[in-house]
Amino acid sequence: MPATHAICEYHTRRRIEFVETDMGGIVHFSRFYVFMEQTEHAFLRSLGANPGSYRHSEGRSVGWPRVAASCEFLSPARFGDELDIHLRVLRKGTSSLTYGFDIRIGERAVARGQVTTVYCQMDAPGGMKAVPIPPEVAGLIGQAVD
Amino acid sequence: MPATHAICEYHTRRRIEFVETDMGGIVHFSRFYVFMEQTEHAFLRSLGANPGSYRHSEGRSVGWPRVAASCEFLSPARFGDELDIHLRVLRKGTSSLTYGFDIRIGERAVARGQVTTVYCQMDAPGGMKAVPIPPEVAGLIGQAVD
Amino acid sequence: MPATHAICEYHTRRRIEFVETDMGGIVHFSRFYVFMEQTEHAFLRSLGANPGSYRHSEGRSVGWPRVAASCEFLSPARFGDELDIHLRVLRKGTSSLTYGFDIRIGERAVARGQVTTVYCQMDAPGGMKAVPIPPEVAGLIGQAVD
Amino acid sequence: MPATHAICEYHTRRRIEFVETDMGGIVHFSRFYVFMEQTEHAFLRSLGANPGSYRHSEGRSVGWPRVAASCEFLSPARFGDELDIHLRVLRKGTSSLTYGFDIRIGERAVARGQVTTVYCQMDAPGGMKAVPIPPEVAGLIGQAVD
Repeated sequence: MPATHAICEYHTRRRIEFVETDMGGIVHFSRFYVFMEQTEHAFLRSLGANPGSYRHSEGRSVGWPRVAASCEFLSPARFGDELDIHLRVLRKGTSSLTYGFDIRIGERAVARGQVTTVYCQMDAPGGMKAVPIPPEVAGLIGQAVD
Repeated sequence: MPATHAICEYHTRRRIEFVETDMGGIVHFSRFYVFMEQTEHAFLRSLGANPGSYRHSEGRSVGWPRVAASCEFLSPARFGDELDIHLRVLRKGTSSLTYGFDIRIGERAVARGQVTTVYCQMDAPGGMKAVPIPPEVAGLIGQAVD
Repeated sequence: MPATHAICEYHTRRRIEFVETDMGGIVHFSRFYVFMEQTEHAFLRSLGANPGSYRHSEGRSVGWPRVAASCEFLSPARFGDELDIHLRVLRKGTSSLTYGFDIRIGERAVARGQVTTVYCQMDAPGGMKAVPIPPEVAGLIGQAVD
Repeated sequence: MPATHAICEYHTRRRIEFVETDMGGIVHFSRFYVFMEQTEHAFLRSLGANPGSYRHSEGRSVGWPRVAASCEFLSPARFGDELDIHLRVLRKGTSSLTYGFDIRIGERAVARGQVTTVYCQMDAPGGMKAVPIPPEVAGLIGQAVD
């Protein structure tokens, strides 16, 4: 069900899969960027927006490539753990969004990250080109006061 | 062949695999953290150190979990591209190392990242515990002057 | 809640994530083996068994390495699709289990696979060694009549 | 350098990366399908063919989706191991190729697999459609006598 007013927070839950662990017995750090992306996509979907819309919309191919992503790893996650992933929209620009993520297992802080993504035409002449976030989506995205 | 004097720079080359792309036609951003890790491991191996030594050494299980990783994505990489990945040791602590990475395709800048990792006993009572980097390894790792 | 009688069928649902697609615009075939494993683990968990128990039980490290896995890919799956994954236990041996999987999107058949896995002591002298499936788990696993 | 006569065997070598291991301390079985694909792509590239050519060729988008893949896992591979991956073309059809793979670490057999792939137009009306392998590629691919 699409949102009807601007929102800036969202929450998902996800169980750690076996393939996400490494020989150290913990989740490989690269997977946390996937956890953040999955939450971002669920957030966009909750707004009624097409999250990874690398499909042609009005003849264009559009998408949300990342320009920056960072994460601090505070404590390990293991196979079978259930992660609570909290998203907040930290900044909203004409074409860009910066999300903050807080990842926990119960009360324990596991990771804290940020991702900046830019809405792009993927098949512009010469490559990708930033384009404005469609107003029907932008209007639904609020911004967290830090 | 192990190094015989302290070094702080290293270079690897890697060809993008099909599985590393996503439906946007470019390399998924989470893979860049893997590219950085692979280069770090090749660097440690070049020093004669066991890179991912989650094996018992003197009865302990040790490893290099990450505490932070960040990356800026400057231009896309595609299937078949050859990445040049340049590592520099930015900071060396008693237990920690911070690496900087510069990723290019020919002359084009593709990504720039940083990873901080801490040498840990993985099976300490209560979980992982930072321990000093073994002197025979620490002695071989120089530090880049910024 | 652990099962109280032998069962041989199980079902999970899973939404395709962006990272699971490749530049062909469809799910990379290697991910289907992960989908099958995740369902197997959910099945074992539903029986009250520890699915990926690479933890020491009575001082031993045990697990379920695979000895064979095959899959036919019948039609493509795309980002956002919801997969229905049906597991059946095809054969139960002293140490081994063979699972069959049927993967669908609504009425459409997407993939059909088989996985054979062997319960092993992971740290036996000389490497991994098959050991009998614990009776409290084996007793809960029924076998599908083909 | 493209081949100048039909060939049906090919060999690559690949070092196991840390991220490819799981908490069992061995390579996750799903990665072997990636190892086989990478070798297939190197083989096609050695023939002068575009391996994952999901690019428009004469206005069409083409590719090599898989219709079946199987693998037997004979002994474990671990972080840092170097795999020798031997490819053979087992069968060549108008649109399809079946490859056999033999994966070893030194003299030790690690895995044995098969992959069947079909050359397809990816953006045909109604989805993907098998099309003949281009003669300039097909002519370079020999077939192993079993």
